[in-house]
Amino acid sequence: MPYELYYWPGIQGRGEFVRLALEEAGADYIDAARSPKGEDEAVSALMAAMEREGVIHPPFAPPFLKDGDVIIGQTAAILLYLGDRHALAPKDPVKRLWVHQIQLTIADLVAEVHDTHHPLGAELYYEEQKPEALRRAKHFREERIPKFLRWFESILARNPESDVHLAGKSVSYADLSLFQIVEGLLYAFPRRTKAVLAEVPRVAVLHQKIAGRPRIHAYLHSGRRLPFNEQGIFRHYPELDG
Amino acid sequence: MPYELYYWPGIQGRGEFVRLALEEAGADYIDAARSPKGEDEAVSALMAAMEREGVIHPPFAPPFLKDGDVIIGQTAAILLYLGDRHALAPKDPVKRLWVHQIQLTIADLVAEVHDTHHPLGAELYYEEQKPEALRRAKHFREERIPKFLRWFESILARNPESDVHLAGKSVSYADLSLFQIVEGLLYAFPRRTKAVLAEVPRVAVLHQKIAGRPRIHAYLHSGRRLPFNEQGIFRHYPELDG
Repeated sequence: MPYELYYWPGIQGRGEFVRLALEEAGADYIDAARSPKGEDEAVSALMAAMEREGVIHPPFAPPFLKDGDVIIGQTAAILLYLGDRHALAPKDPVKRLWVHQIQLTIADLVAEVHDTHHPLGAELYYEEQKPEALRRAKHFREERIPKFLRWFESILARNPESDVHLAGKSVSYADLSLFQIVEGLLYAFPRRTKAVLAEVPRVAVLHQKIAGRPRIHAYLHSGRRLPFNEQGIFRHYPELDG
Repeated sequence: MPYELYYWPGIQGRGEFVRLALEEAGADYIDAARSPKGEDEAVSALMAAMEREGVIHPPFAPPFLKDGDVIIGQTAAILLYLGDRHALAPKDPVKRLWVHQIQLTIADLVAEVHDTHHPLGAELYYEEQKPEALRRAKHFREERIPKFLRWFESILARNPESDVHLAGKSVSYADLSLFQIVEGLLYAFPRRTKAVLAEVPRVAVLHQKIAGRPRIHAYLHSGRRLPFNEQGIFRHYPELDG
């Protein structure tokens, strides 16, 4: 039975971290956000699945994954589950937890990226909070992007088993997620991100290597990969890039 | 060998979720934030532990836990680790992941609470972003507090094994964390939280039951439990309570 992934249509968003893991695993999955019947249908299916009566483990928000009777919400929890099933995380319990810890830090980074264009809250449009976004983005751009990327660089430098994987000697979901972070930062803050990437060569190499993995390469060049846009988490507003 | 917990001194913060688990477990631990030599010493020890050369798994930020040679950062990852070791999570893998998923949603709530008083970023004082905080807090208070607390209520209502535990039939770290969320919301937004709590009786009962557990009760009445204050995550600014 294929997995079913539920997420908002029209954007990559947090669902994309799950898609990358499913694609790298070559897993059979139905992406409910990409309903051939259109976006309205996709949202209806999402809401129906999320709010169904009698679900013992109701997710708080998308994305969530159905695997038969099991429903799992929270991106990092979904990846923890898929990592075990598809060898996208080390088996050693300490290393497995380390990959998860990296993923949780990536989740924090994603929340900070969202707040650069929505500091006053997701319920208001960007245009309603532009002066505040300019203030919040400045600190993110100048301090947080280098702090996060240098942390990933230090992890790659310290991994005794590999220079191109964050943990262990083979690819993990954290590697895939770091690829997505670099893609997103390059889209949203191209000027600043290119400058910082020049200082973190291992992160830049990991980004290239993941893009070149056969299944990821095929996915990125397929119609399944939506382009970044200004409804998602990573948005390109040139004024926020300084 | 005792655990060593590293966190900022002077506040409960995210470290408190770890403390509650350690206390409920009756675990032997050294709280580096509560150094008898004072707060400066505690911060020095924290920074030294975090930035030590040669650490293969460097945490991005506090809190982090040392268990012999193992260092674990990210509150939810620490609790995943402690949950297994001290029977603070179900053994069944699906239920174990469900408890973790709840904890990750609690982490999102904690980040939103922080943003109510720091919408423009943690590097500025509250007083430098008060108008923005008033705007952000309004939505949090009116929409998000009831949305989160009703979600917890629905989980308690749907748990086939218990009315007073979020998952399984005995206490988990998610129960302890929900207790802390209710404590914090009652401190920061007393007016609004009391009104919402009246609509979520199972959450209110869980909060009381956890407070009455012998080890938690002893901890809350000890000098180890710091009071809430206006340097932490849950801050009482009456103007933000509407």
